[in-house]
Amino acid sequence: MKERLDRLYSQIEDLMSEHRFPEIKEALSTMEPADIGEMLVEAPRAKRVLIFRLLPKDLAIEVFEHMEGAEREELLDSFTEKEAAEIIEEMSDDDRTALLDELPAKTVEKLMQHLSPEERKLANRLLNYPEDSAGRIMTAEYIGLKASMTVTEALQHIRREARSKETIYSCFVMDGERHLRGVVDLEDMILAQPETPISDLMDDDPVFVTTLTDQEKLAQVMSRYDLHVIPVVDLENRLVGIVTFDDVLDIVEEEATEDFERMAGIQPIEEKYLDTGVFTLARKRLLWLVICIMAQAISSSVLKRYSVTIESVVALTFFIPLLIGTGGNAGMQSATLMIRGMTLGDIDWKNLGHIFLREILTGLLLGIPLGLLAIGRAYMLGTGPSVALVVAFALISVVMLGNLAGVALPVIARAVRIDPAVMSGPFITTTVDVVGLLVYFEIARRVLGVG
Amino acid sequence: MKERLDRLYSQIEDLMSEHRFPEIKEALSTMEPADIGEMLVEAPRAKRVLIFRLLPKDLAIEVFEHMEGAEREELLDSFTEKEAAEIIEEMSDDDRTALLDELPAKTVEKLMQHLSPEERKLANRLLNYPEDSAGRIMTAEYIGLKASMTVTEALQHIRREARSKETIYSCFVMDGERHLRGVVDLEDMILAQPETPISDLMDDDPVFVTTLTDQEKLAQVMSRYDLHVIPVVDLENRLVGIVTFDDVLDIVEEEATEDFERMAGIQPIEEKYLDTGVFTLARKRLLWLVICIMAQAISSSVLKRYSVTIESVVALTFFIPLLIGTGGNAGMQSATLMIRGMTLGDIDWKNLGHIFLREILTGLLLGIPLGLLAIGRAYMLGTGPSVALVVAFALISVVMLGNLAGVALPVIARAVRIDPAVMSGPFITTTVDVVGLLVYFEIARRVLGVG
Repeated sequence: MKERLDRLYSQIEDLMSEHRFPEIKEALSTMEPADIGEMLVEAPRAKRVLIFRLLPKDLAIEVFEHMEGAEREELLDSFTEKEAAEIIEEMSDDDRTALLDELPAKTVEKLMQHLSPEERKLANRLLNYPEDSAGRIMTAEYIGLKASMTVTEALQHIRREARSKETIYSCFVMDGERHLRGVVDLEDMILAQPETPISDLMDDDPVFVTTLTDQEKLAQVMSRYDLHVIPVVDLENRLVGIVTFDDVLDIVEEEATEDFERMAGIQPIEEKYLDTGVFTLARKRLLWLVICIMAQAISSSVLKRYSVTIESVVALTFFIPLLIGTGGNAGMQSATLMIRGMTLGDIDWKNLGHIFLREILTGLLLGIPLGLLAIGRAYMLGTGPSVALVVAFALISVVMLGNLAGVALPVIARAVRIDPAVMSGPFITTTVDVVGLLVYFEIARRVLGVG
Repeated sequence: MKERLDRLYSQIEDLMSEHRFPEIKEALSTMEPADIGEMLVEAPRAKRVLIFRLLPKDLAIEVFEHMEGAEREELLDSFTEKEAAEIIEEMSDDDRTALLDELPAKTVEKLMQHLSPEERKLANRLLNYPEDSAGRIMTAEYIGLKASMTVTEALQHIRREARSKETIYSCFVMDGERHLRGVVDLEDMILAQPETPISDLMDDDPVFVTTLTDQEKLAQVMSRYDLHVIPVVDLENRLVGIVTFDDVLDIVEEEATEDFERMAGIQPIEEKYLDTGVFTLARKRLLWLVICIMAQAISSSVLKRYSVTIESVVALTFFIPLLIGTGGNAGMQSATLMIRGMTLGDIDWKNLGHIFLREILTGLLLGIPLGLLAIGRAYMLGTGPSVALVVAFALISVVMLGNLAGVALPVIARAVRIDPAVMSGPFITTTVDVVGLLVYFEIARRVLGVG
């Protein structure tokens, strides 16, 4: 892969240095849009504009669709308003919506004025669907058929329309009011007799989503049914667009990234790491760190409350990081299994009692060997048997506690309709820290009879 | 979606209770394979076998392909060996490989004997590719064309072969030695004149992977080029299979799940949470908890070393959880950004110096406000100004430390060719705990002049 790109890039590079523009044009026209896009992103600005202008128009649009972030906006800036509007007029609906979402409102307003009334209306409509909804990511570039058409008529229609459509491999059958009546695959048309009516070939109970379906749900549905395209209907069941498999891959990656970030206590970051400024990064990270420090204020109070115990047996402090660290780790493990299971739809409310039972059992299975290790460690530090016993008991309790918090917090989050991922990471470790310390010192106070 | 399924299920349920088998057959034949599969998984065993036997053969195979885990093996057990072999003979190559991977070796051996020699050879070949490689997940059911064919000839060939192939929307052009020469889309054939030669329509520099390409890499390539199918060649560039988009969605989800698990210190779990036994769960989680307890043994030693300091100023212990917790959180944040960036290919070796600089800067931006909060907290606990100052300085250091560890550990992992995700979670928090405590008490000892 890498070699392929290096070969292509150095070829263009050589031709550029010799100003052999017709040959550059020729070489570019056989390249993949994604590769040209990457090359442009890495090229210096002046060269970027030059190469882009050498592209045949169709390819230029495709390349533009494959780019993202600051480089694309910069490229757009280097065009006249009219040129920019021309590109945007020709873009796929879904890529255009994504671009207009990114651009400053002022630029969008200006560009919109140059669009044809038809495309302007469409672009505005798509931009008005809620963020992360099927409506916001769909394209209206689908092939619509009538149930009464024969295969021959349908294929004629497809041939006429194909060039401007996102896919022709699934076509969508509507009635006079544009209600979705069925989906028919090109494969079935190709294999059928020419005079067969579409109504005989179509699936008349197709899987669909509505404009308001969340994109994560949409991805789940497409994955479940192995669909390469899914129809999107409005609230009156009228077909308004489609979403194709390539968008779904982006969604799955985007949602996974968001979950990773949330689980680490980072508010979702829109751009790539290196495209995000240091101040934005700090801002996205500060909130949860502050919340956790606030919560840790409680752990300081807990420790202060037991300062007499600590003063009598300083050795108890030696195990604080070990105890709360292990509890936090166990909590993170359980929470991760829970959250991932929820995301993939493997975990169901009705299993909740069963899940708690499993986690208590797992907690014991983990706690006992870990407790023995802790006894060994305490012995090595020469703390005496009673402290060793306190540490072992506390460790078993803290692991169980971690497991229970790991299940409970994501479940509570889901119940109050917060993303469960938000409830994990820092939140769980902090909870376990505070409760774990209470448990530890309470056990210590009773067993050792101090404080 | 949910209502759709409930409606279908209750319809079947009603018909079952009245033993109206022809109508059940009829109802089943219009359902989606994924839905029937789910219904079977949830049905009691006797009913499961009964429903499955009512399915038309093609649909039965598809339903079987959509099922997974224990229920599928159970279903297989309820068939005679010959029946089971018949299903396996007809399955898609890729689904079959996945199934044979799951089954006990003895069962596989028995089933293999009943396969046709041709299918047996193919199944064996696919099973011999390394786990998670393109070879292991590909199917040999693609349409092969010759460059010299006309569109009419190609379409005739496609019509003859279509039923047994995974996709007809992209066809693969080979020479006499089966070397991959190009890829041609059905769309282009449909739009071209009937007498056009395939060589005029095909992309003769197609994107491909080899049998040994890792599935994660394969998914990245397909996502980058928006491919719904990718050809897989052997080391002599001969076409041996294809991988389709539906597998890629599964791969992306599987790899994300593995990363989530690794980052939480869980060894990857093959099955769904609820399908995994408690002992297996504990086993997959124990390793990292043990490693972390071993590492935390160092933190106990650090604290023991400073026991004189602790005895003189017990208030220092109040802030241990706050300090190491915050450091660990900051470390997890940085590590998550790093690991996700590496997975998505956004982060490059050559930016490493730049990244460290960014993280030091972010560490300062986060550390200073957090340090002020810590001073406030210390003041509230009445620890006096010097302890407050020690805590604030330590907190800033620990956040920076967390950031640096969060970048360094995944980078080191990558350098020694371990999955960076393994290096995060427990590993980072434990590292930060140990080093953070050293820093804290060293600052305390110097500033407070004790110990």
